Amino acid sequence: MKIKAGIVGATGYAGAELVRLLLNHPQAEVAAVSSVSYEGKKLSDVYPNFLGLCDDVLCDEDALIEKSDIIFTSVPHGVGEAIAKKAIAKGKKFIDLGADFRLSKEEDYRQWYGGEYHEPALHRMAVYGLPELFYKEIQGAQLIANPGCYPTSIALGLAPAMEAGVLDVNTLILDSKSGVTGAGRGLSQTTHYPDCNEAFSPYKIACHRHTPEIEETLSTLSGFPVKVTFVPHLLPVNRGIVSTMYGKILKNISPAEIRKMYEDYYRDKRFVRVLPEGQTANLKNVRYSNYCDISLHFDARTGRLIVVSCIDNMVKGAAGQAIQNMNLLYGLDEGAGLALVPPAF
Amino acid sequence: MKIKAGIVGATGYAGAELVRLLLNHPQAEVAAVSSVSYEGKKLSDVYPNFLGLCDDVLCDEDALIEKSDIIFTSVPHGVGEAIAKKAIAKGKKFIDLGADFRLSKEEDYRQWYGGEYHEPALHRMAVYGLPELFYKEIQGAQLIANPGCYPTSIALGLAPAMEAGVLDVNTLILDSKSGVTGAGRGLSQTTHYPDCNEAFSPYKIACHRHTPEIEETLSTLSGFPVKVTFVPHLLPVNRGIVSTMYGKILKNISPAEIRKMYEDYYRDKRFVRVLPEGQTANLKNVRYSNYCDISLHFDARTGRLIVVSCIDNMVKGAAGQAIQNMNLLYGLDEGAGLALVPPAF
Amino acid sequence: MKIKAGIVGATGYAGAELVRLLLNHPQAEVAAVSSVSYEGKKLSDVYPNFLGLCDDVLCDEDALIEKSDIIFTSVPHGVGEAIAKKAIAKGKKFIDLGADFRLSKEEDYRQWYGGEYHEPALHRMAVYGLPELFYKEIQGAQLIANPGCYPTSIALGLAPAMEAGVLDVNTLILDSKSGVTGAGRGLSQTTHYPDCNEAFSPYKIACHRHTPEIEETLSTLSGFPVKVTFVPHLLPVNRGIVSTMYGKILKNISPAEIRKMYEDYYRDKRFVRVLPEGQTANLKNVRYSNYCDISLHFDARTGRLIVVSCIDNMVKGAAGQAIQNMNLLYGLDEGAGLALVPPAF
Amino acid sequence: MKIKAGIVGATGYAGAELVRLLLNHPQAEVAAVSSVSYEGKKLSDVYPNFLGLCDDVLCDEDALIEKSDIIFTSVPHGVGEAIAKKAIAKGKKFIDLGADFRLSKEEDYRQWYGGEYHEPALHRMAVYGLPELFYKEIQGAQLIANPGCYPTSIALGLAPAMEAGVLDVNTLILDSKSGVTGAGRGLSQTTHYPDCNEAFSPYKIACHRHTPEIEETLSTLSGFPVKVTFVPHLLPVNRGIVSTMYGKILKNISPAEIRKMYEDYYRDKRFVRVLPEGQTANLKNVRYSNYCDISLHFDARTGRLIVVSCIDNMVKGAAGQAIQNMNLLYGLDEGAGLALVPPAF
Repeated sequence: MKIKAGIVGATGYAGAELVRLLLNHPQAEVAAVSSVSYEGKKLSDVYPNFLGLCDDVLCDEDALIEKSDIIFTSVPHGVGEAIAKKAIAKGKKFIDLGADFRLSKEEDYRQWYGGEYHEPALHRMAVYGLPELFYKEIQGAQLIANPGCYPTSIALGLAPAMEAGVLDVNTLILDSKSGVTGAGRGLSQTTHYPDCNEAFSPYKIACHRHTPEIEETLSTLSGFPVKVTFVPHLLPVNRGIVSTMYGKILKNISPAEIRKMYEDYYRDKRFVRVLPEGQTANLKNVRYSNYCDISLHFDARTGRLIVVSCIDNMVKGAAGQAIQNMNLLYGLDEGAGLALVPPAF
Repeated sequence: MKIKAGIVGATGYAGAELVRLLLNHPQAEVAAVSSVSYEGKKLSDVYPNFLGLCDDVLCDEDALIEKSDIIFTSVPHGVGEAIAKKAIAKGKKFIDLGADFRLSKEEDYRQWYGGEYHEPALHRMAVYGLPELFYKEIQGAQLIANPGCYPTSIALGLAPAMEAGVLDVNTLILDSKSGVTGAGRGLSQTTHYPDCNEAFSPYKIACHRHTPEIEETLSTLSGFPVKVTFVPHLLPVNRGIVSTMYGKILKNISPAEIRKMYEDYYRDKRFVRVLPEGQTANLKNVRYSNYCDISLHFDARTGRLIVVSCIDNMVKGAAGQAIQNMNLLYGLDEGAGLALVPPAF
Repeated sequence: MKIKAGIVGATGYAGAELVRLLLNHPQAEVAAVSSVSYEGKKLSDVYPNFLGLCDDVLCDEDALIEKSDIIFTSVPHGVGEAIAKKAIAKGKKFIDLGADFRLSKEEDYRQWYGGEYHEPALHRMAVYGLPELFYKEIQGAQLIANPGCYPTSIALGLAPAMEAGVLDVNTLILDSKSGVTGAGRGLSQTTHYPDCNEAFSPYKIACHRHTPEIEETLSTLSGFPVKVTFVPHLLPVNRGIVSTMYGKILKNISPAEIRKMYEDYYRDKRFVRVLPEGQTANLKNVRYSNYCDISLHFDARTGRLIVVSCIDNMVKGAAGQAIQNMNLLYGLDEGAGLALVPPAF
Repeated sequence: MKIKAGIVGATGYAGAELVRLLLNHPQAEVAAVSSVSYEGKKLSDVYPNFLGLCDDVLCDEDALIEKSDIIFTSVPHGVGEAIAKKAIAKGKKFIDLGADFRLSKEEDYRQWYGGEYHEPALHRMAVYGLPELFYKEIQGAQLIANPGCYPTSIALGLAPAMEAGVLDVNTLILDSKSGVTGAGRGLSQTTHYPDCNEAFSPYKIACHRHTPEIEETLSTLSGFPVKVTFVPHLLPVNRGIVSTMYGKILKNISPAEIRKMYEDYYRDKRFVRVLPEGQTANLKNVRYSNYCDISLHFDARTGRLIVVSCIDNMVKGAAGQAIQNMNLLYGLDEGAGLALVPPAF
């Protein structure tokens, strides 16, 4: 019997992407979809791409929890915690694609999100679901905080260097660019087609909410408190994140050694591809897939390592990673339902 | 044991799309890939999206035929026929994604393509592989002519009306718009990004080579010689075709009756979705999938039927339809390897 | 002293384009800008491209009328009429970029817009401002109805053929495609970037409100009552309209004669370019300019004329044409302020 | 009488943009256009946007020099020097839009471009034409090296901070993103529409040829030898550059003081707009204009200044700046022919 998956917030972009992936999962199925705004409508009325594939009627959150073995929430921050409480109380597994359980320190959450932790017990249970880095913790968990899209691209891009301590952690500049789906399905002037097409600029410069999440992971990996300068940009494409990351090389270590370090680190991780020397990561090569492509570059003139890390923000940066976490929670093959070959165009 | 598929011209766009689909096919596998321009290189050097997924070395056409049970050719017109001869002589199955076997009359081929038929026996064997219309003929075939992208969208959009004889066949106007992958991977000023982006225009107005193919199918379906005005346009998107088609309604038949006729016609065809009344077909809902979405509209003021038909030119318009044909040739489930859920974005 | 121009609805797209053009007009200047939604803000707060060029504070409509010699309104239909009444009463000139004065018959307005004519006297005064066709009427006018964007592209593309009576007026199919600015600055799911990018479809099929306007002009030109099938499409570009138009050739007239007829018709019209034989009109060649490019094509196999007509929907289709009308009203050079060289990219 | 301007390489993108600007210049005119590839054709055959506006026949370089008072060259590096020699010998003024005269040290040119200086006297004459920084030197010059596009955006963005010495020059990270016209009109797989659309990646990481030019200007301004890490990215838009620049603040200076420093520095420079606090520079606000928009941001947590600088790579980054230089050479108003209001969309 298949795992019954429920998606709260199925009409958001990450929710719709979860539906797309679950429809092809060999061991799980969409048991229920919910939406506050569209309750009572069919999912395929909101997303006509699903016509004939998922014509389920959008129900409410309680009915959804009842029908599901595992609940995915793709809702604004502050909303996921209460749903988690209900789901966990009923013994369900829970994966939050929002920010409610990502930060281990409540003070960080308060400072960056302006909210509070109402259920400390849940927060103690929560595991940060970046499988390539926290595989073991995830396997035994019941409640997963699915990482943010930018933090996923950045943590994967820097993890080997952080663990090995080869970079001066005070010099990290993280210049990221994200496709417009990252801003969600909600309307705004910034994402209105004529305002967004043939346009480009950074936003939330050095004040984006993903900053503390990035810093917490990098600090954990390096063993030092890390403070980064993180600047996201809005890119006129639908999907994909490119993070270009800069750091001063500390140790007397050659480019070839750093490259080997990365290759060793990710040898057994099927969703991370460290590109051969001479190639540069491009978001087009990972779109619609769960891959993270990483390329390594060296500025010998200034002694800096430059890492380029690309993901599909909606797959490895959201729904795909959530499925990967679900697979681990259930002891399935990590890549079940994720055999997505990135198209060439 | 899996069916061994060989792809001649694997570095073209349709070839690369065939690789993408075959990598996930449950009963077939990529046995060999060939390319004249890149022989000796790895496919993943040309298409880095395939890194770790298909690192096969591009071989020559003869080696490929040897290794394969079925050969797909995605090559310029005039090239496929000679490859077919070799493959058929060795008892292989053969699907040509080019134009060499699409037209039943050599005089049409001579007029529109400026070439000749050197192997009449092969042309007599060839079956036009549009499964929704010629299912039975395809099942027993050895050599398939995979239809053109525009003709696929148009034939599926008009078939029910043609067979029922509800339109004046002298009034057909076919205004089609195709994404840029339709022009192939070869470089040209027209498809240079700054010339193509924020641009739009028709091309090969009333003289595109798909015209005789369209007319042959519509004539077969209607039983009358059909002459159409067909105008393709280049659309600044990567994938997808929208054909907007106009015809005068002949008989005293209501919109509801025409709609029912379409729904009945396609009831058992899993890859054609006749949209509910009030919805309009949009290429975004079929991208990366094998679906053809059709919407029906009526201009009561002028007595015209307007059909909008959308496909992904690279899937239903090329590689996906070729896989569908392969499935039929081998008696597999028609949709094997084609469970592609179109993404919402 | 310069003509004082006031723009009601300056924060809409057509309004912003009027500002752009007026800032470079040698004999006119922006005297006032108004906006219901942004009153009290600076125009450059809403449109940062105008920073330092037009930092005027958005005022209300009455203050604007007071300060202006000529008033342009770019407001939803039904709103322009009342403003016209006030402006005309004060002896000002008035150009409405909306639909309130475009249709000569109130019954058409009632049927297609669901509104009524409250000021019959104003409607009698109103002149349809398509300068290439109604030059003389415009010169002496006080109140101008600036044509719709689609009707401009279509009327210019068909005028010579209509006047000469070479087409069967019962066979006209008008397949138009417009950039997204045509949908305005207001937010909608359809124009949300990820929903609109890499997408394409027709909309308001055979029921778009520009239909009666198109038919009125074509009927006037041909002397016969014309009914057309008009289907607009939303094109993923910011600017530009391409209308592909089809009609059966009635008379025994050669392509060369039709071409000469077009060239003669537009010889003295500086903003219409009839392209040389062998070229095809493309919206990229008229973007950011007041040109209308027209190319002529013939389908000898079916006896049809195919006209392709391209404009920038925001210039010749809105603000540029309004300036051209203003120039005529004031007896200025028709092209004053409109020496806009279309960029190559 | 108007200044006679000749454009060598008029069929390249920068050449075509020069034509567009010169056609509206009040005191200059296009006297001749040349092209190696298209000699004998009309410019409007290559660029149909110029139909009726510039139908000049493309001549050879010698004929062009004869007819012109000032020669602009938009040719590959290594080609401009020889043309300059001929032009200067005939007493003409000369502006090279290529790289031949930008670097003062031949060793830098040799290292980064692999070429040599054959005419040392010309190199001694050459002035680096960034008018906001080297106004005086330009005024008396005969031979101008028009700056590169990236260096223009970067030098303008950092000049006030460099001159004031507020940044640690060893910490400069320059992350730039350019529209595709920056890669020129020549065909390449990278700029083929389906490969470039919905794609994004850096290129020539830490080894782009604009690096020594950037460093020379920053070193001149700061008085210290500056080494930067410069990483350009290819952005899927036609036009525009955004440079996001990072540097450690050295002195005890407040954000407000830095802002004031920038405002003072650029007070009299009409083409540089320092944005008000709270706004972020976006390339869409400078497209088709000669403006450079600069916004200033501070990362208090890490003590860094972040400068965002936007230009249109084809105007301020190429043809517009060349016109500005021409104006200074002739003692005209600096902004003659450059009253280009950036459109809102």
